[in-house]
Amino acid sequence: MPSPAHSFSWDDALRVSLQEYSQDNPSNLSGFFERVKLCNRGSELQSEFLPFFVGSDIAGYIHYRFANHLRDFPDVFIFSQDDSRGSGSGGHVSLCPSLRTPDDRTKAVASVVEYLAEALIPGIRKELYPVKSSFDSPILFSLERAAAPYFGIKVYGVHMNGYAERNGEEFLWIGKRSHEKSTFPGMLDHLVAGGLPHDIACGENIIKECEEEAGIPRTISRRAIPVGAVSYMDIDGVRFKRDVLFCYDLKLPQDFTPNNQDGEVESFKLIPVPQVVNIIRRTNFFKPNCSLVIIDFLFRHGYIKPEYDGYLDLLRSLKSGDCS
Amino acid sequence: MPSPAHSFSWDDALRVSLQEYSQDNPSNLSGFFERVKLCNRGSELQSEFLPFFVGSDIAGYIHYRFANHLRDFPDVFIFSQDDSRGSGSGGHVSLCPSLRTPDDRTKAVASVVEYLAEALIPGIRKELYPVKSSFDSPILFSLERAAAPYFGIKVYGVHMNGYAERNGEEFLWIGKRSHEKSTFPGMLDHLVAGGLPHDIACGENIIKECEEEAGIPRTISRRAIPVGAVSYMDIDGVRFKRDVLFCYDLKLPQDFTPNNQDGEVESFKLIPVPQVVNIIRRTNFFKPNCSLVIIDFLFRHGYIKPEYDGYLDLLRSLKSGDCS
Repeated sequence: MPSPAHSFSWDDALRVSLQEYSQDNPSNLSGFFERVKLCNRGSELQSEFLPFFVGSDIAGYIHYRFANHLRDFPDVFIFSQDDSRGSGSGGHVSLCPSLRTPDDRTKAVASVVEYLAEALIPGIRKELYPVKSSFDSPILFSLERAAAPYFGIKVYGVHMNGYAERNGEEFLWIGKRSHEKSTFPGMLDHLVAGGLPHDIACGENIIKECEEEAGIPRTISRRAIPVGAVSYMDIDGVRFKRDVLFCYDLKLPQDFTPNNQDGEVESFKLIPVPQVVNIIRRTNFFKPNCSLVIIDFLFRHGYIKPEYDGYLDLLRSLKSGDCS
Repeated sequence: MPSPAHSFSWDDALRVSLQEYSQDNPSNLSGFFERVKLCNRGSELQSEFLPFFVGSDIAGYIHYRFANHLRDFPDVFIFSQDDSRGSGSGGHVSLCPSLRTPDDRTKAVASVVEYLAEALIPGIRKELYPVKSSFDSPILFSLERAAAPYFGIKVYGVHMNGYAERNGEEFLWIGKRSHEKSTFPGMLDHLVAGGLPHDIACGENIIKECEEEAGIPRTISRRAIPVGAVSYMDIDGVRFKRDVLFCYDLKLPQDFTPNNQDGEVESFKLIPVPQVVNIIRRTNFFKPNCSLVIIDFLFRHGYIKPEYDGYLDLLRSLKSGDCS
């Protein structure tokens, strides 16, 4: 497996995509399973996290070491050893019940996050994510995006596979992330993807991101169709990601070329799907969660077949997280 | 809701499909949830079933009342009160370890099924299903199809949505089952569907069923693409269905008309997808498990949107059974 993942060029990726590996067999799904695993680390460490309640709703999960820093803010966070709420480790964290409205909670938590940011929460983005116990439930409060994994809240995103058909063959538009990005610099990416802020619907967000990330006009992007969702659950140290990605497909006109507007993408290439498959199976070049959404595309477009050993296991694994 | 489901005509179905219901709202997914529920009855009754072991593999689940009839065959079935294998109710059924090969087991169980058939297992088909603990695991033995739910074995099928595109709109080919069918006579059905016998791969089976059920030649049917799977778990009295359906899409040429070859379908109609949606949401006209596969189609083709309340719950519910 070529590595390290972040220091490769398009040439490296294309070389892998075209090379024939004698040990490769399309029915061997192990490369895909490795990519899924990379998004679902540390499930054996769940007991190190305390449920984080807002009222009677579970808003997230907080690592006991990170939680210790929150004990300095008793006006915001309350700790309990009471086991009645189902925490195996016998404790949980709650927001103070005196913080009654989402607004009150947002401000109170923001002040704590601001205080802890320098030492503990790198990469503050000044971007708020809604905190909910599930997608359809009411917003409990809003939280700085960079702090989300420290509170283990559910985060929702939209990811779009942009593809084109030429001579009956399917191609995927693949982006290479700018080296200036704070997260996953230089890695391969979808044509369009983004987190879901609290004030915008999925479909509208896709259209907005299409414009910003790939210069796709609304006349085209409104044809993007929602095709399902994937989910994962990733524990990395004190961080717990519980992400659900809404997946979209957009079939682009043959003559369309994407054009990044916001500087977040270095460049795009149109790559035949079987070559994308090779990159996914053999490398960690893709931003990890993009692999899941591309594997979902491969399932829906018939590239992964029931005859391949592990078909149902791989299909299920695309929703390894709480997909709610 | 029009009922009873089995006594309707095409005219009834088309009337429902076209009628505007003032209380209908595309974002209201409740009609879909009802269809899913119809395939997943009785989950609260699982404790009435005993795990059925072949060696150390769980081959199925048998209702304690049906199991009592198997006690008369101590050369084939062994009963144990030993709880070490994880049965909550403290008992399980095993095949006699003296039945060492799949062939031995097939013959021994067949003789019991034959004996019980007249009184307890209606509709013997003389068609064998493979018994496995999961799709990729080895065949433990083979069992008469009609007996499958009494032993609660995993059953695999292939279901295909045949669709056509006209003027940018999608249509689904819908079949109406013959009134002579022993199961679900007169109900609406996919263009092509069938159980998966033990000697044929999914892709090959779809091609075979395409020919038999809809007169689709191999030149067209080989373009059918696998697109995923749905699963359900249905308890009805002493019967336990644990089915996994591999889903296929086949885009048919505009001028193709299906033609049933085996007498199992009364007739086919090409219906605009939004009209199929109306039938699914408002009636029980479809054979229940077909609704799941059509709802999966609706997700993948963008007819059900993340903006609709319950999107993720409905998506998850399509794999309510053990999808392995």
